[in-house]
Amino acid sequence: MQVVLTSEEANKLKTGACVRIHGILTQSPGTEQSKELQAQHVEVLGESDSTYPLQKKYHSMEFLRDNLHLRSRTNIFGAIFRVRSAAIIGFQNFFQTNEFFQIHTPIITNSDCEGGGEVFKISANKKKNIKIEHTKDGLVEKDFFGSPVYLTVSGQLHAEILACAMSRVYTFGPVFRAEESLTSRHLAEFWMLEAEIAFMFKLDELLDFVESCLRDTTKHILNTCSQDLEFFNQWVDKELSTRLEDTINKPFIRITYSEAINILSKANKRFEFQPVFGTSFHSEHEKYLATDYCRGPVFITDYPKEIKPFYMRVNPDGKTVACTDLLFPKVGEIVGGSLREERYQKLVKRLKEFNLNTEEFQWYLDLRKYGTIPHGGFGIGFERYLQYITGMDNIRDVIPFPRSTNFCKV
Amino acid sequence: MQVVLTSEEANKLKTGACVRIHGILTQSPGTEQSKELQAQHVEVLGESDSTYPLQKKYHSMEFLRDNLHLRSRTNIFGAIFRVRSAAIIGFQNFFQTNEFFQIHTPIITNSDCEGGGEVFKISANKKKNIKIEHTKDGLVEKDFFGSPVYLTVSGQLHAEILACAMSRVYTFGPVFRAEESLTSRHLAEFWMLEAEIAFMFKLDELLDFVESCLRDTTKHILNTCSQDLEFFNQWVDKELSTRLEDTINKPFIRITYSEAINILSKANKRFEFQPVFGTSFHSEHEKYLATDYCRGPVFITDYPKEIKPFYMRVNPDGKTVACTDLLFPKVGEIVGGSLREERYQKLVKRLKEFNLNTEEFQWYLDLRKYGTIPHGGFGIGFERYLQYITGMDNIRDVIPFPRSTNFCKV
Repeated sequence: MQVVLTSEEANKLKTGACVRIHGILTQSPGTEQSKELQAQHVEVLGESDSTYPLQKKYHSMEFLRDNLHLRSRTNIFGAIFRVRSAAIIGFQNFFQTNEFFQIHTPIITNSDCEGGGEVFKISANKKKNIKIEHTKDGLVEKDFFGSPVYLTVSGQLHAEILACAMSRVYTFGPVFRAEESLTSRHLAEFWMLEAEIAFMFKLDELLDFVESCLRDTTKHILNTCSQDLEFFNQWVDKELSTRLEDTINKPFIRITYSEAINILSKANKRFEFQPVFGTSFHSEHEKYLATDYCRGPVFITDYPKEIKPFYMRVNPDGKTVACTDLLFPKVGEIVGGSLREERYQKLVKRLKEFNLNTEEFQWYLDLRKYGTIPHGGFGIGFERYLQYITGMDNIRDVIPFPRSTNFCKV
Repeated sequence: MQVVLTSEEANKLKTGACVRIHGILTQSPGTEQSKELQAQHVEVLGESDSTYPLQKKYHSMEFLRDNLHLRSRTNIFGAIFRVRSAAIIGFQNFFQTNEFFQIHTPIITNSDCEGGGEVFKISANKKKNIKIEHTKDGLVEKDFFGSPVYLTVSGQLHAEILACAMSRVYTFGPVFRAEESLTSRHLAEFWMLEAEIAFMFKLDELLDFVESCLRDTTKHILNTCSQDLEFFNQWVDKELSTRLEDTINKPFIRITYSEAINILSKANKRFEFQPVFGTSFHSEHEKYLATDYCRGPVFITDYPKEIKPFYMRVNPDGKTVACTDLLFPKVGEIVGGSLREERYQKLVKRLKEFNLNTEEFQWYLDLRKYGTIPHGGFGIGFERYLQYITGMDNIRDVIPFPRSTNFCKV
């Protein structure tokens, strides 16, 4: 807000000061704002030191990342974190309207296998929490939980437990990946929205649901944060508004993995990695499919079972699984989902194909042994979605306190 | 729901099976339910194995804790987790109505000092993530983040960063304590709702706000989960309904720490530990104050500064701090809050009194150096609050996947 002060009063104020101003709100003669405050009484609640790092000029994103504790005071980070809050509420509203229960899956887990070993291990910090026990293997150090524990990479398997009891559940929480990665798309700690839905029989039902979820949430943000989105459109990405309008107005495209491979191999474009049937897409392939070819969100479905996790439901062809990755222009994969393998014997077979210990997964198998339910679910990478909504290039700039390789400041 | 079947159909169904039943919904002649389903077509979607551990009888809480992956299928845990979901939404509604932004504070932090060392340490699991670096101290092992990191014990200090930029913020996330504790009130992983409010000048404003927050959320639960609360009142705690009605209708009592010590020392009751001015309350003292003396929620305010953390605002008397613990009958402390010390020099002094390294807290001090703001905040122990709402004795039974000493199942 523009405040009109005498120059004497204005000279007393430093950038970064905290002030309380009494005055009269009037129509502004200026073109930059509709209203302004004619100050009558100016009170400084908190002085600002002259070493204040933020000045009334452009600061680079790198500089602001070095001042994590102050960057939320800039106009761009104010806008980003308001949109972040609105996105949370948008998702909440959607799931409440659709009669879901919100649950909490655990952060500390005893499984390190699902994420291929790229997990963080946890130990009690103090020596006094370590106990030495006599076992048949001699003296063994025993930690807090009595067994090795890790930070979760996904709440999905636990969410399935509750979906098989309460029908429709979602969880919103932090997940962790110990991947050494310095890309603008990866964080070691990020937030995931994961939903599990009982009595889901067909993959298309899942796709319909994901599409509604993202459309309704995006609409909520457009309705409640229009000024912030205008700001991003002006300063961050001139095509943002058009892209978001398209997202809520046009149906998402749906193609199979085979069709996608076909499109890529016919593409009039040189890829660093040739697209090969039976391998995962590289980020350049995802970008081509969503940004160049489809020019909008695209569901890729029915991947070969070898390149997807054990829990996805095997299709009648025996070769592919009933799954989807949703790719968005510029950002790439935002959602991953599938029907879950609900048939006991087929799940045992899949676990063995992946050399996973069936005993460790007995609780997961039990869900199929005692009243199994056809079901499916999906996970939304919350920060990736926010990158799409704000147009921000670097994922570290859409979360207040980013954590990644060699980066844990404040 | 009661379903009326032929005995032939009924004999085909085992406890735990997943069924789809088509039929006609009718008024029930029975007294236990108002409606029943007259089955026309019964379809078994998922058979249940005869080894299904849950039977149509009473199971102890201990037995159900040993079957974490199935206990959410019982009526009591269904009710608990529905109430848990309603409580989340109740809090969300309250904070949205009061124009707060939801934020996320980090789970991985680089500080281990605040919780007195009772923290979990994190390391990358794989050898490949460990690097050996040449430094002036010789070869040093370098971990994923380049410095030791821990699981957060509270999001408060980080929330203050955002309150000093966005005015009113709240965060809802998991926090961790590596306390070896087998009591029914402690978890190693639990959820906290933490709010920070800029431009808060008096402790009473904070108390008013906490009281509204808990009253509105409790009302929301009473309005949306009446059947589940009736169930708890009938089977768990016969005084629950009365206690909850009182909570939303009567003002919370407010007394100072000095007054509380006075009440305790005059109490016609033998305590295991004598209440002594200048020491923290024991759980027997909290119980006496809330359950016996006040018979309802009671705010204890203005504790001696020596027994409270460094960040609480020192009162004009120089001896106490502007803080509160809110005690609830049966459960004890549910909320802790305070005005935050916003005066730079006084905060430096407090850090030194606690032998804390001012350099490590420079970012926190900066919030006072650059436009300091009188502010306050509080944290609600989400599972403790749920114990109060449901009447459940053990905190492990109000969270889907409890983690505590030697307990990390499923």
